[in-house]
Amino acid sequence: VAESAADLYEKLLGGERRATARLITMVEDGVPEAREVLQRLHRYSGKARIIGLTGSPGSGKSTLAFRLAEYYRKEGLSIGIIAVDPTSAFTGGALLGDRIRMQGLSADPEVFIRSMGSRGALGGLAVATNDVINILDASGKDVVIVETVGAGQVEVEIVKFTHTCVVVTMPGGGDEIQAIKAGILEIGDVFVVNKSDREGAARTAADLEMMLETKPGYGAAAWKPVIVSTVALDGEGVAELAAAIDSHRQFLVESGNLEEKTILRMKAEVREILSQTVGRAAEGALGPGGPGEELLRRMAAREIDPHTAAEEIARLLFKAPPD
Amino acid sequence: VAESAADLYEKLLGGERRATARLITMVEDGVPEAREVLQRLHRYSGKARIIGLTGSPGSGKSTLAFRLAEYYRKEGLSIGIIAVDPTSAFTGGALLGDRIRMQGLSADPEVFIRSMGSRGALGGLAVATNDVINILDASGKDVVIVETVGAGQVEVEIVKFTHTCVVVTMPGGGDEIQAIKAGILEIGDVFVVNKSDREGAARTAADLEMMLETKPGYGAAAWKPVIVSTVALDGEGVAELAAAIDSHRQFLVESGNLEEKTILRMKAEVREILSQTVGRAAEGALGPGGPGEELLRRMAAREIDPHTAAEEIARLLFKAPPD
Repeated sequence: VAESAADLYEKLLGGERRATARLITMVEDGVPEAREVLQRLHRYSGKARIIGLTGSPGSGKSTLAFRLAEYYRKEGLSIGIIAVDPTSAFTGGALLGDRIRMQGLSADPEVFIRSMGSRGALGGLAVATNDVINILDASGKDVVIVETVGAGQVEVEIVKFTHTCVVVTMPGGGDEIQAIKAGILEIGDVFVVNKSDREGAARTAADLEMMLETKPGYGAAAWKPVIVSTVALDGEGVAELAAAIDSHRQFLVESGNLEEKTILRMKAEVREILSQTVGRAAEGALGPGGPGEELLRRMAAREIDPHTAAEEIARLLFKAPPD
Repeated sequence: VAESAADLYEKLLGGERRATARLITMVEDGVPEAREVLQRLHRYSGKARIIGLTGSPGSGKSTLAFRLAEYYRKEGLSIGIIAVDPTSAFTGGALLGDRIRMQGLSADPEVFIRSMGSRGALGGLAVATNDVINILDASGKDVVIVETVGAGQVEVEIVKFTHTCVVVTMPGGGDEIQAIKAGILEIGDVFVVNKSDREGAARTAADLEMMLETKPGYGAAAWKPVIVSTVALDGEGVAELAAAIDSHRQFLVESGNLEEKTILRMKAEVREILSQTVGRAAEGALGPGGPGEELLRRMAAREIDPHTAAEEIARLLFKAPPD
């Protein structure tokens, strides 16, 4: 029996886990009815603290997300965890080890865990993730943790618009270079040296410290990124991490940056949704029988280049074609 | 002294390396004049073999790209190598080790090597990479190798539209799971088990074989992905890899799929360019004084949700708003 949008909405606000899970699946599958529920839910969102966790593969992000969730649970807060893995289109979901680690938590009714792969088109994952953040927020979760596997463009874009972005690194072996050299240096509010019981941890922290000193826009007036050392496996340093996240939130509230971040995130959401929209419109225009079919033929014959073709399509689609 | 677009165009077709390098920089920087040159160049492109190389970090993609280039050089072919690293926004460029390895090659006038980070906005990297492929193609390179670091959505999108996509894995330690589970299983035409002198290489190849058997759309009529074992460091198996790439190209030509791939790539290019265009348009609409400023205020007040706001903006921008 199909559930109406109104039913789903009521159940979700009533705290029914299954309603949340169902709506998320609808969002992922691009079911039109999901839109209606999202619209209605919007006014209940805006209360959760949204924490992003990113870093190189193997740095222990998932374990850290798990430990943070445990910590917040002890403080009596309810938690949503979104594990974003754009590479999981084929098999879907998180690695088995993570699933097992999470098991204890996921039995807790105050914890909602969801893995998201890239089912849809390019750009689709960012929109879907934002939708899921909003759903968990509206459903009353106090904290939403968004964990991204890897540090690709889309993942970085996703965590960029969380309230506090935690970048996870680890000591040794050249791996840290890849983590540190990334554009994620710019987006981190809190940096973690995880697996800090390993050799080279102090060195990695010192390297980070140095790189952050030379970070553009880094000054006394702005937020000074905090570096925390952890051993996620046995929970060491997790309280310190939570404290650092807390003090960043404090900073956001006091400086008025929280509102600014919210606006930025909304802008990014709208831009992403529009980008998807135009993707579909372009697909239609370039599809069989569409006005762009002839353009494709001319491109293949090397008569016109893709930029010119895109311009032509833009002229067809837009009221006032942007430059 | 500024070079005119016409000058640059002539020099590039005349085989001047510096003209190629300059045009690529202009593309990366989004200089408007670059467009004019790209338009003129378009009719000279379409001859190069475009090979994509992707896989997990540490799998040895760069070394393999280097060995492949060496191999093709011995066959008398000219080479372009594009190393795409979306995470390198901050420091830019490839790792030092790669640079050193490439040094011998880059002194060769018939080899053009370029690292690309993500300077622009989201989606910008895919467009810029396609532009650079077209530039190297038009400049007369016989083979263009596109190597992507990591397996994020954007990177996968980029290699998806090369003629032959090579997925690089390596034995052992759970790493291969991450490589294999990725959506890249679907896009690989040739699979490499690199570092095959290590323990577990046969197992990894067998695992791959099994996963490919169950790959959707895998049948007798279609291309059967080939698995090649290599030790890129000392060049072992590189001739076999080149042969596998060659036989895939043969398949594309004989089956008529080459043309189809070209059309798909052009479609993707147009879609990407349009996506960027609409991003700029949305930025304008949502910016200060724009018609979307009020929408943003209403979103922040939780009166309307991002999907509704995007719809409103679409109504302003598009002639016939897509659904």
